[in-house]
Amino acid sequence: MIIDCHGHYTTAPAELQAFRDAQIAALQDPSKAPRIAPVIADDQIRESLEKAQLKLQRERGTDLTIFSPRASAMAHHIGNEATSSAWTRVCNDLIHRVVRLYPDNFVGVCQLPQSPGVPAAHSAAELERCVKELGFIGCNLNPDPSGGHWNAPPLTDRHWYPLYEKMVELDVPAMVHVSASCNPNFHATGAHYINADTTAFMQFIQSDLFKDFPTLRFIIPHGGGAVPYHWGRYRGLAQDMKRPPLAELVMKNVYFDTCVYHQPGIDLLARVIPVENILFGSEMVGAVRGVDPTTGHYYDDTKRYVDALPLGAADKQKIYSGNARRVFPRLDALLRARGH
Amino acid sequence: MIIDCHGHYTTAPAELQAFRDAQIAALQDPSKAPRIAPVIADDQIRESLEKAQLKLQRERGTDLTIFSPRASAMAHHIGNEATSSAWTRVCNDLIHRVVRLYPDNFVGVCQLPQSPGVPAAHSAAELERCVKELGFIGCNLNPDPSGGHWNAPPLTDRHWYPLYEKMVELDVPAMVHVSASCNPNFHATGAHYINADTTAFMQFIQSDLFKDFPTLRFIIPHGGGAVPYHWGRYRGLAQDMKRPPLAELVMKNVYFDTCVYHQPGIDLLARVIPVENILFGSEMVGAVRGVDPTTGHYYDDTKRYVDALPLGAADKQKIYSGNARRVFPRLDALLRARGH
Repeated sequence: MIIDCHGHYTTAPAELQAFRDAQIAALQDPSKAPRIAPVIADDQIRESLEKAQLKLQRERGTDLTIFSPRASAMAHHIGNEATSSAWTRVCNDLIHRVVRLYPDNFVGVCQLPQSPGVPAAHSAAELERCVKELGFIGCNLNPDPSGGHWNAPPLTDRHWYPLYEKMVELDVPAMVHVSASCNPNFHATGAHYINADTTAFMQFIQSDLFKDFPTLRFIIPHGGGAVPYHWGRYRGLAQDMKRPPLAELVMKNVYFDTCVYHQPGIDLLARVIPVENILFGSEMVGAVRGVDPTTGHYYDDTKRYVDALPLGAADKQKIYSGNARRVFPRLDALLRARGH
Repeated sequence: MIIDCHGHYTTAPAELQAFRDAQIAALQDPSKAPRIAPVIADDQIRESLEKAQLKLQRERGTDLTIFSPRASAMAHHIGNEATSSAWTRVCNDLIHRVVRLYPDNFVGVCQLPQSPGVPAAHSAAELERCVKELGFIGCNLNPDPSGGHWNAPPLTDRHWYPLYEKMVELDVPAMVHVSASCNPNFHATGAHYINADTTAFMQFIQSDLFKDFPTLRFIIPHGGGAVPYHWGRYRGLAQDMKRPPLAELVMKNVYFDTCVYHQPGIDLLARVIPVENILFGSEMVGAVRGVDPTTGHYYDDTKRYVDALPLGAADKQKIYSGNARRVFPRLDALLRARGH
């Protein structure tokens, strides 16, 4: 079984965006507020997936995608807590419908109703709803709800602890994932995403977060940002700061996906990061949609790169499914119940 | 000849920091303002270098360091334009003294008197002074003078054009280099530096800056941030955005140094980035000061990694000196005048 740990519903029916547009219009003119959740038929959902994510699963030979709402559309910086809360619920409920229609192909991960200046504790209830009522197995946590102004406390601050307590209680991990950037310095998928990944890892090095929460788990997407490329720098910085070795300090709690869109990058990832810390992911349909002219294949067909790694079958099995089942225990339970 | 394109005067005599401390104290109490530039004897400068940068040059077998003030101490966010201007002048003058004492070992690159909200045009005069009067060959340009709040316009905005015009007129490049972070989200050398490198490259992809300035040249330090590791992502994003290929769009104007502190990172850099765009650099004495227990050598002894690359002598010569002489024409002229 091949589990893709990083997929977003980037192809949702237009009714979803119409709801969001109405919600944003209502920030200026409350009479434009959407009265009800978007009305989307099952067939619309099927169509939106059949020609995109499901087609790519079939073509590329992957089985199950850990699926969450479109990351760039979370846009926690828009409006206030009520805006974020309503939007989040609609997005998560739509993921739940996807999973009910295609339980063998998708399993849900939720976005959180974060909002600038709002306590992280306020996201715990939606996480609990998604896990307990909708069967979700994790969440996407935005370290910068401001969308590029970076004025929230670091992920290691006690601000986040109530949410972490809920994650530990539910035994679900978070993918550290920012959303759209409203700062013109940062292109979303080309800078803001990668910067956030790098930033989060360095924050973890500086703190004792995982002493306080030994079972807390984070996936840092996009191959861990800049971290594997600068692995020597991070080992050296931890050493200069008299911190424990990275293996002990963070690598029992932090995992990287394989959303790195060329063979040399994936080769580096597998060369420096322990195989136990790598989860297969493609981010499809997502950040980069074209075909690489140097290979003739989609940039985001990351399975090709992982297949080409000089690793044995047991190690590849860890990357393709074993690690995901370990990091997402609720997924493991679900698959076991189905005889996998 | 081996030219290290990235060295900072991180070991300056304590009088320099005392001047800075007085300057910062004066922000609250003007009576504490330093009256004169720091008084530092030639022997103090010699001692500060002999046991550090010069010792490491000898031990590692490098010849000439392109030398600039300590990057983290530029701290353009402290005080106002007058503060930054006075501090910058003192720091640049001290680099000039280093170069006069050791003209075979160092050549100067200046910091700029940037300050949040101040036009970039105001930095042109100090650049001109350093180049024309002090013999400097380039500058360090901070894309985020706020120190981690990222509220300046992107490097491709016309805000920066008057400075670029002066750079083109003087035929000097800039290294894109942020300073200390006053945002608790960003560790300086572990996140802010790397993020800025990544951010700048993506800004260049999005713009036509190099159409407006075909001879403008930037060095993106720290191995180009996350860029080489995510080279497929950047190629793919440019392609999705209908931009020209990176070779044409940015790689005639943008160079990466080799400040990547482990062999796998340098291997990746040389595997994906054209050899013409790589400049040897070590950042010594700098971000990481320890010895890598897996090799028994200093993390920042990047010459060892470059030496180990599977490249021919001609390519290594480009990385070690040819490219630097091309990117810094004033250095080339200086070396030619000396018979190199």
